[in-house]
Amino acid sequence: MLNLRLREIADMVGGELVGEDVAITGAAGLEDAAAGDLTFVSRPALLARLTDSRAGAVLLGPGMTAALPAVVCDDPYRAFARILALELPDPDRVFPPGVHPTAVVAADADVAAAASVGPYCVIGAGTTVGAGSRLGAHVTLGPDVAVGRDCVLHAQVTVREGCRLGDRVVLQAGVVIGTEGFGYLPGAEGLERIPQVGRVVIEDDVEIGACSCVDRATTGTTVVGTGTKIDNQIQIGHNVQVGRHCALSAQTGISGSCTVGDGVTMGGQVGIADHVKIGDGVKIGAKSGIMKDIAPGETVFGYPALDVKETFRIAGAMRRLPDLLRRVARLERAADEEERP
Amino acid sequence: MLNLRLREIADMVGGELVGEDVAITGAAGLEDAAAGDLTFVSRPALLARLTDSRAGAVLLGPGMTAALPAVVCDDPYRAFARILALELPDPDRVFPPGVHPTAVVAADADVAAAASVGPYCVIGAGTTVGAGSRLGAHVTLGPDVAVGRDCVLHAQVTVREGCRLGDRVVLQAGVVIGTEGFGYLPGAEGLERIPQVGRVVIEDDVEIGACSCVDRATTGTTVVGTGTKIDNQIQIGHNVQVGRHCALSAQTGISGSCTVGDGVTMGGQVGIADHVKIGDGVKIGAKSGIMKDIAPGETVFGYPALDVKETFRIAGAMRRLPDLLRRVARLERAADEEERP
Amino acid sequence: MLNLRLREIADMVGGELVGEDVAITGAAGLEDAAAGDLTFVSRPALLARLTDSRAGAVLLGPGMTAALPAVVCDDPYRAFARILALELPDPDRVFPPGVHPTAVVAADADVAAAASVGPYCVIGAGTTVGAGSRLGAHVTLGPDVAVGRDCVLHAQVTVREGCRLGDRVVLQAGVVIGTEGFGYLPGAEGLERIPQVGRVVIEDDVEIGACSCVDRATTGTTVVGTGTKIDNQIQIGHNVQVGRHCALSAQTGISGSCTVGDGVTMGGQVGIADHVKIGDGVKIGAKSGIMKDIAPGETVFGYPALDVKETFRIAGAMRRLPDLLRRVARLERAADEEERP
Repeated sequence: MLNLRLREIADMVGGELVGEDVAITGAAGLEDAAAGDLTFVSRPALLARLTDSRAGAVLLGPGMTAALPAVVCDDPYRAFARILALELPDPDRVFPPGVHPTAVVAADADVAAAASVGPYCVIGAGTTVGAGSRLGAHVTLGPDVAVGRDCVLHAQVTVREGCRLGDRVVLQAGVVIGTEGFGYLPGAEGLERIPQVGRVVIEDDVEIGACSCVDRATTGTTVVGTGTKIDNQIQIGHNVQVGRHCALSAQTGISGSCTVGDGVTMGGQVGIADHVKIGDGVKIGAKSGIMKDIAPGETVFGYPALDVKETFRIAGAMRRLPDLLRRVARLERAADEEERP
Repeated sequence: MLNLRLREIADMVGGELVGEDVAITGAAGLEDAAAGDLTFVSRPALLARLTDSRAGAVLLGPGMTAALPAVVCDDPYRAFARILALELPDPDRVFPPGVHPTAVVAADADVAAAASVGPYCVIGAGTTVGAGSRLGAHVTLGPDVAVGRDCVLHAQVTVREGCRLGDRVVLQAGVVIGTEGFGYLPGAEGLERIPQVGRVVIEDDVEIGACSCVDRATTGTTVVGTGTKIDNQIQIGHNVQVGRHCALSAQTGISGSCTVGDGVTMGGQVGIADHVKIGDGVKIGAKSGIMKDIAPGETVFGYPALDVKETFRIAGAMRRLPDLLRRVARLERAADEEERP
Repeated sequence: MLNLRLREIADMVGGELVGEDVAITGAAGLEDAAAGDLTFVSRPALLARLTDSRAGAVLLGPGMTAALPAVVCDDPYRAFARILALELPDPDRVFPPGVHPTAVVAADADVAAAASVGPYCVIGAGTTVGAGSRLGAHVTLGPDVAVGRDCVLHAQVTVREGCRLGDRVVLQAGVVIGTEGFGYLPGAEGLERIPQVGRVVIEDDVEIGACSCVDRATTGTTVVGTGTKIDNQIQIGHNVQVGRHCALSAQTGISGSCTVGDGVTMGGQVGIADHVKIGDGVKIGAKSGIMKDIAPGETVFGYPALDVKETFRIAGAMRRLPDLLRRVARLERAADEEERP
């Protein structure tokens, strides 16, 4: 709950107050907003929706006007996000400071004094946790793990032996880092495990969603690059190299030894076959199945994936296919009749 | 293991005993049934399968007959389910009563005397657990969570701060409720987290399968409506509103801000793009990809999804497409020859 | 880190040393290898890649030669796997021996003296754990569970009441065995749970990847057969029978009551509708949707899945479909003109 005047908000976001300096007690999207709430409109086309909102005030972009008290600023959505942050719960309530007495910390683990370790965490031999990092309940760090500074690992996260997290990494509940990937050799008595002796490196500012998994490399390193955001229930196979500042949506799977460039975005439920290379800046539509390399900058969609425009053109043509069959049959009958003497 | 006479079962389900009053020691489907087991046949068309079953007795619908001892009743499947329930293990064996001494319960949490809290559960500040609710091992409830009456939360469940469960909610092992969703803004130094200050409300009689995730709202509430059943490994994005009495099959994903009406059924691995509205009573076939609103009562299928009949018509036509290409080429050759002088 | 001479490696794998008997300090794939590392080349076609590798020595197949010190042997990949195994961490470092004092073990559970039980494990009444089996932190075994010999259950695994694991079973972190499946009956007040009184049997030498789920049977047994390997985030429904020596890739889902034969392979994100029978030796391409039985030995692909050759033929033809529409329209115009007097 907020306790601010609209003028204070204008000052915080570097905007201009237009209208009454009302009291603001919360922040919410247009549809959720109640009386006293601040909301935002980022595009003039959405201004009409304000009439149905119960919001008490609004953040607007340059040149926009509204019937209710407003703050006009350069980037209303970003300004709104800044105000939202004031409503986050006190982190000390979610992650009480200090090492909980029930945590099992190996004698030679090195947990920074300014870290928070929740109840029943298990921290293995030789593992380090940097200052400002917060571990929820039941987090399991294997031996020889390195967690950087200001990371947040939510409840039930598992990081297996030898894996490394950079700084400001967020792992949501149930994330599993460093499990053995799907590597087997056919043998006389069935599939035989190929030992997976590599590790995983999660670089700075990466966020990984609930129940997502990143497999350790067979040899070498599986990497998720700086700033990349990974949604829930995503699978990253062994030896995959994900670049920097990518955004992968939920339930996507990347098979072993793929390379994903920088700034790549993927919709949900995308699947990528093993050893495929995805170039920088590629956009992949939801549910696409990728079986071969994608050149930098392309936008692809479909199963199997093609250039997005071609996929939509084909999808449109497919709806005309049953009729096309009838039309061709008609042409054939006409041609037949013509040939008959 | 049961220890009943068939007449007792007839009395329990309000049916009529036909044939010998045999002893019943178990209940099983047609194919699994052993001697002494009760089985069921719900439709006359399936009566023939009884000849291959080793069952000792059978529940039949009105007007059906069989060579083995039977109970004829209105709804054999439902009657069978009632008998199956007698074979469930004693809940006190699975969830021993009381609060396990290893549970970490915040001083101001309010756990009902008649609740069961398993080993190593962690219950945060200000959280309430209603009477008759049972928590398996390693359940983590953040601060300010509310769990209603007669809920069952299996091992390793996580419910994040501020989220609410109604009464008789079942969360299978590994479920994660209230994680921050996939909301970022592009910034100068990469994607920036939009604070997610909303919460999740799971209404009464909802069941959620293993390792499924429901993200908290950005602002406001992500809702799963009364009586809705969610299978394993399902992803529900931030601000999604799922209606009442829906059935969502495994590995389905619903993107942020979607609205799903009442009584909607989805097959497995369905994907729905963000901000889509699915009307009441819609049926969505397995693996469908939904990119736009679906009107109430429609049945859709495919990727991209269309009316199910159209999708099957197109799928049938597609199998004729390679041949169609040849037929058109033949017509073109014929036309060419005709034009030639 | 290894500390071997190449000749020792030749002796271990039964191969022939060719070139200098160099010191070997590690083992890595061609691209990851550093100075001192042993690598391998399994096919002559890949020999050219050696020139870009920094490896210090190489395992080669019969008749192959290289510019760097080599061991020629029958099966370089398998030999490499044997050397990799030397680099695995000491299992006693990952799973310290003995039962950790924080484990909650029921009075009548039977944990073999030679088993390892990690911190905060919970082992239910009547449960047995065989010799040589290792449980990571926070593993929850319900009552009446049986775990065979030499199994490895990683952190946060849940095995529900009455389920059985054979010998040498590996369950990666977050696996859930024995949850109630998606079985409901429509009732007057909504969907009603069909009691799930069956169990799960995981046979010998099965491996199951992180966050995968196997539902218990409604009645009888859900089975995963000997030697089958299941990747991460896979869903196996109630009463499914998976055969022996199958390989199922990540994010695949098998609906209730399906039967999968022996030696079946599935790519990632495959979905199979309920009650489908998949014959022995079937191969299913990634992302396929299977709605009907597949005969033994077939290779299928697509959504809906067809014989793989037909699917690729149709996919190729689809790319010509927009043009085909134009071609048919041209033929129709020509026919029209001809008919006009």
